[in-house]
Amino acid sequence: MKNEFHLIKRLKSLIPRSLQGSIPIGDDAGIFRAPPDKSLLFTTDVIVEGVDFLIGKRGASPPPAGTASPEEIGHKALAVNLSDIAAMGGRPLAFVSTWGIPKKFPEKWVERAAKEMLHLTRRFKVDWVGGDISRANQVFISIAMVGRASKKVVLRKGAKPGDFIYVTGKLGGSIKGKHLSFTPRILEGQFLASRFTPTAMIDISDGFVQDLGHLLKASKVGARVELESIPISNAAWRGARRSRRRALQSALSYGEDFELLFTLRPAQRVKLEKAWRKRFPGVLLSCVGEVTNSKPGKIDWFDGRKPLTKLWFQKTGFAHF
Amino acid sequence: MKNEFHLIKRLKSLIPRSLQGSIPIGDDAGIFRAPPDKSLLFTTDVIVEGVDFLIGKRGASPPPAGTASPEEIGHKALAVNLSDIAAMGGRPLAFVSTWGIPKKFPEKWVERAAKEMLHLTRRFKVDWVGGDISRANQVFISIAMVGRASKKVVLRKGAKPGDFIYVTGKLGGSIKGKHLSFTPRILEGQFLASRFTPTAMIDISDGFVQDLGHLLKASKVGARVELESIPISNAAWRGARRSRRRALQSALSYGEDFELLFTLRPAQRVKLEKAWRKRFPGVLLSCVGEVTNSKPGKIDWFDGRKPLTKLWFQKTGFAHF
Repeated sequence: MKNEFHLIKRLKSLIPRSLQGSIPIGDDAGIFRAPPDKSLLFTTDVIVEGVDFLIGKRGASPPPAGTASPEEIGHKALAVNLSDIAAMGGRPLAFVSTWGIPKKFPEKWVERAAKEMLHLTRRFKVDWVGGDISRANQVFISIAMVGRASKKVVLRKGAKPGDFIYVTGKLGGSIKGKHLSFTPRILEGQFLASRFTPTAMIDISDGFVQDLGHLLKASKVGARVELESIPISNAAWRGARRSRRRALQSALSYGEDFELLFTLRPAQRVKLEKAWRKRFPGVLLSCVGEVTNSKPGKIDWFDGRKPLTKLWFQKTGFAHF
Repeated sequence: MKNEFHLIKRLKSLIPRSLQGSIPIGDDAGIFRAPPDKSLLFTTDVIVEGVDFLIGKRGASPPPAGTASPEEIGHKALAVNLSDIAAMGGRPLAFVSTWGIPKKFPEKWVERAAKEMLHLTRRFKVDWVGGDISRANQVFISIAMVGRASKKVVLRKGAKPGDFIYVTGKLGGSIKGKHLSFTPRILEGQFLASRFTPTAMIDISDGFVQDLGHLLKASKVGARVELESIPISNAAWRGARRSRRRALQSALSYGEDFELLFTLRPAQRVKLEKAWRKRFPGVLLSCVGEVTNSKPGKIDWFDGRKPLTKLWFQKTGFAHF
């Protein structure tokens, strides 16, 4: 790698002018046109080599097991931020990125990651308005994104006893590949926030159990969840060697599913499920339980309508420290 | 350090609710109130241990030479972003932060850095609306900030032949301490952009010569610069062991001064200098040269009005790779 000015110039040349915001990238700050709304969403996520992904030996082909391609890593860096905006029912507007790049690291790798990010950038019509590159011992990509809120912002708090609990897609086994290639639920989140009134919403990054816990605690409510209703992904089934318990464990706790978890007033149930099937025929929508007035954060588990007196699964997934 | 949830909770508890934006920190995205303007500034900068700062052995007191305290590092992380907003003549609105923290790193260090950031947050009335923490091999802090543009955004391009070239404060020797403690020129940048019409502006991060070069190339103009007018800091003088050349070298190229460098139509000169002395009596303002129609980016150097035929100083300062 020559120097950061050269790389910044290369990256800039990859980004179509129409996606660089109101002025070309290269000033001290970028500029984007904000809608006349008064409230904007603002989120940030960083992914780090050795924590969120592994890079194989440079140039090894095919890449060793467990490692990710620059395309997958670029995709993930941007998609996790889009997923945050989706979880608020918002529309992404603009983002900036900072990169940590080791000395002598191939520029080509960075370019490939950036090119992949452009696919998502185009697909969700979000402007890439600037960035910063620094030397670092390990690769990291930190992205910050601003979005437009829906008319009614959907928060983690707001769930009320009696609400149904829904989850999009299927859960578990994300480590087998989905965590690097998932489609952020931007369209689904906007659809929900604009056409219905979800009372609370979160994206599943830490795992269903933990993230449902975050939502319930923020809402100061409890929940009843039916294990038979948890949508288990094929990857989780494959990794479970015929054990339903192992498959459920993965779906409940392993995290990085980046599906939406939300609560809805019962009166909207029929209308939502019908409209959903029409609008997103390829995306499963599962009602997995309901909100209760139990102790904040407490989940009562059921399996085939029978209460689970002893939990046989771990509740926590990945922790950073 | 226990885990990231614990630390995030601690950090959140340090930030007054009034500085957390429209909703308390802890949802998938923060929310801030944007002014009705249609254009917003968006910038990001990352600082990395071993590149932008050194951390001493934990707990060593006093810290070893060359190392920085958590307060200084927190200050710098935020101040460099504020400086970018200042360079566009903008007003900061909200920011988010991502942190890379090594395993077993003291939580207290992170808290001290964050507390110091709150001083700048309060001083410039900017909301801290969210963040992310990841494990990493070396400490890094990446901040992204959104700001409100002045009525007329000041870019790097726009300088015209005949414009005067100004620099705020004094240059050089920043490595001796100023790079960790400088006050971002937010007030000065807003004053310039709202009361005058600077034709181009940039903050000096890479060094006077390089950053003037960026401004001139963006504006497709050249410049004439008088060495006798370059404001040399006391730190640069002290480090120069009585050599004017060494002092100038530091002022011209070492970078991280985070002063504003801007160009102005000659007709505004008298009015600006008078208003400046009244508004910022403690901040030197120096006219160091003028814009020419020479080759884009070309600087003709003068010393005591005599053209410099042979440059005795290096033009480039710090490079990351």
